[in-house]
Amino acid sequence: MINFADRMNLLKGSEIRELLKLTEQPDIISFAGGLPAPELFPVDGMAKASQSVMDEMGSVALQYTSTEGYRPLREKIAERMLAKNGIRTDADHILMTSGSQEGLDFSGRVFLNKGDVVLLESPSYLGAINAFKTCEPTFIEVPTDKDGMIMEELEKILENVQNVKMIYVIPDFQNPTGRTWPLERRVKFMEIINKFEIPVIEDNPYGELRFKGEYLPSLKSLDEKGLVIFLGSFSKILAPGYRLGWICASDEILAKYNFIKQGASLQSSTIGQLEVNKFLEMYDLDEHVNKIVEVYGKRCELMIKTMEETFPSDIEFTHPDGGLFTWVVLPEYMDAKVLAPQCIEKKVAYVPGGSFFPNGGHENTFRLNYSNMPDDKIVEGIHRIAEVLHNNLQNSK
Amino acid sequence: MINFADRMNLLKGSEIRELLKLTEQPDIISFAGGLPAPELFPVDGMAKASQSVMDEMGSVALQYTSTEGYRPLREKIAERMLAKNGIRTDADHILMTSGSQEGLDFSGRVFLNKGDVVLLESPSYLGAINAFKTCEPTFIEVPTDKDGMIMEELEKILENVQNVKMIYVIPDFQNPTGRTWPLERRVKFMEIINKFEIPVIEDNPYGELRFKGEYLPSLKSLDEKGLVIFLGSFSKILAPGYRLGWICASDEILAKYNFIKQGASLQSSTIGQLEVNKFLEMYDLDEHVNKIVEVYGKRCELMIKTMEETFPSDIEFTHPDGGLFTWVVLPEYMDAKVLAPQCIEKKVAYVPGGSFFPNGGHENTFRLNYSNMPDDKIVEGIHRIAEVLHNNLQNSK
Repeated sequence: MINFADRMNLLKGSEIRELLKLTEQPDIISFAGGLPAPELFPVDGMAKASQSVMDEMGSVALQYTSTEGYRPLREKIAERMLAKNGIRTDADHILMTSGSQEGLDFSGRVFLNKGDVVLLESPSYLGAINAFKTCEPTFIEVPTDKDGMIMEELEKILENVQNVKMIYVIPDFQNPTGRTWPLERRVKFMEIINKFEIPVIEDNPYGELRFKGEYLPSLKSLDEKGLVIFLGSFSKILAPGYRLGWICASDEILAKYNFIKQGASLQSSTIGQLEVNKFLEMYDLDEHVNKIVEVYGKRCELMIKTMEETFPSDIEFTHPDGGLFTWVVLPEYMDAKVLAPQCIEKKVAYVPGGSFFPNGGHENTFRLNYSNMPDDKIVEGIHRIAEVLHNNLQNSK
Repeated sequence: MINFADRMNLLKGSEIRELLKLTEQPDIISFAGGLPAPELFPVDGMAKASQSVMDEMGSVALQYTSTEGYRPLREKIAERMLAKNGIRTDADHILMTSGSQEGLDFSGRVFLNKGDVVLLESPSYLGAINAFKTCEPTFIEVPTDKDGMIMEELEKILENVQNVKMIYVIPDFQNPTGRTWPLERRVKFMEIINKFEIPVIEDNPYGELRFKGEYLPSLKSLDEKGLVIFLGSFSKILAPGYRLGWICASDEILAKYNFIKQGASLQSSTIGQLEVNKFLEMYDLDEHVNKIVEVYGKRCELMIKTMEETFPSDIEFTHPDGGLFTWVVLPEYMDAKVLAPQCIEKKVAYVPGGSFFPNGGHENTFRLNYSNMPDDKIVEGIHRIAEVLHNNLQNSK
């Protein structure tokens, strides 16, 4: 009999990944994944960038590079972080990762011993929870409302709980809720953090995908003590197929991430980094992002409108200003895990919300993605879910 | 003050990575890295493969794919493993990784609790040691001779040590020594493993790079109980820039690796997988590998011959039948870390051997790579090292 490490008892396959497999059938309307709209990918541009890299520096592209990553790309990322997130940094404070997911995994390993406490929004991103679990921490969920994490609750926890080693947050268009923290909360959050001096992982894959409301500064841009570790990604603004993200952090912290990266994967794809760098030289990424934002904004609006028209009246959902997701709260007697197979029978899929709560419960919730389906399927899919919801209402008229 | 996890106390930057940075200066003759010869990369072929992928299925290439990886590529890998390693397997027993390094990292996390024992050859691959360290295990080095791990020693350890959770080996053209286990040792090893039922990580990035001697079966091909986890890689037979490797293992074990991969990086590069798959469809990889083997064989021979002609007579080194490295053992009074700066002054670099021993010692050793430098630089570089060695001889005539 083979002995596995204790941490393996905590890990099950992610429900999203399992669902995605189910939903690979082309006749399923899937609101389950967090997939970008493939029809918007800049295929021609990336093809030209790729050709140009192979023509000009093919043998560099195919060789090993440094753990930090390709410097010209890191320089462009630093410029973009100033323009988009108000963060003053440079190439020396950026480490390339194989998608943001790698940054999440590294975060747990840099900060968490077994039994240490990590704080996160309730609910929070399932992929982050699973990444942190490999370090066997204790999760404490910080209560949230429609404006994200509640700062009084955060402060109360930090005053009473020893051993908090890390706080994980997604202030912009959160996964899974689509919620965004207003400015006052960001300022208050940094006040609290500066007082308690706890490292913060600011996960920001969706920040540029704002289709409503006003720009808000990132936590990292408000960080004076070097406590915030910012995770960025090309997955949602360009394409996830490259698996390219980055970590921006202060010297001492970034050095630790670098050590972990050396053992975990040596470096991210050289050719991927060179091609994305070339694309940024040849094309205007802002123009591309604007296109995405326009389409996602319309899809979000259409999904929300259709939900308002068809869902039973006692069902609540968020109204995102950006990002990829809306979050549905059912009456407490309903269980989204029980309803999911009924929906899949009708060829429509979502992700049940329970897995986004590391300590369990909240089975009366689910997450909907609106970026990956065209308009007609959004309308049709929401109608099908609405039908299942109506069929399962208690005391329905 | 920020608290880091305990594991961070064990991790220093890899000396190889630090050295590689030093040796990026173009006037240095570097035998330090494990870099393939860039002039042999099939740049044109990969450019055409890339173009073809973007033309035919660009939006698939840029999208997310499954954690397991792109099935057509996994099917081709399964066929290749039968042809090259005598392993009967299929796509369902292969998980793509972001280089073999990711497979090493996952191996530690799947099997090792803090304090568990991992056995490995003495010396062993520095990158594996660093990857395993993040799980805070105890390392026991199994003694070796010119034919690799000594089986009597392995058996003695397994009989006396509790808590051995994993054995890590590189039977073909080992890194750092260049040694290869003969058939009898492989058979004996599997007998011992079957008796004690300990999982084995068989790391095989160099197996196809044999320029002398006869084909030998992989451990995995002799594995009847599903105890061997085989790590393969495209880095040395095609190009490292893609960061594409794979794990082949039995169902229960592979499922655990898959869980870790979901949290660690979701999946390996979609576009990289599709491009390598297309290259394998369009071109004959064997033909390409034959070219590499011819060049590396000549470079190895030239390096060994030059060492025989120039090194002091009481210095020993291995005579590899394949792979990328030869291993030098100095008289015990010499310290390769002390000599390295003297060599760098003469614009030539190697990796001091101490870091390849997880429990320290053996500072009178170093590793030389012969794949990355052209003939004239091999001769010149070895002459310069020989000069430093002669200058540091005690009782020299």
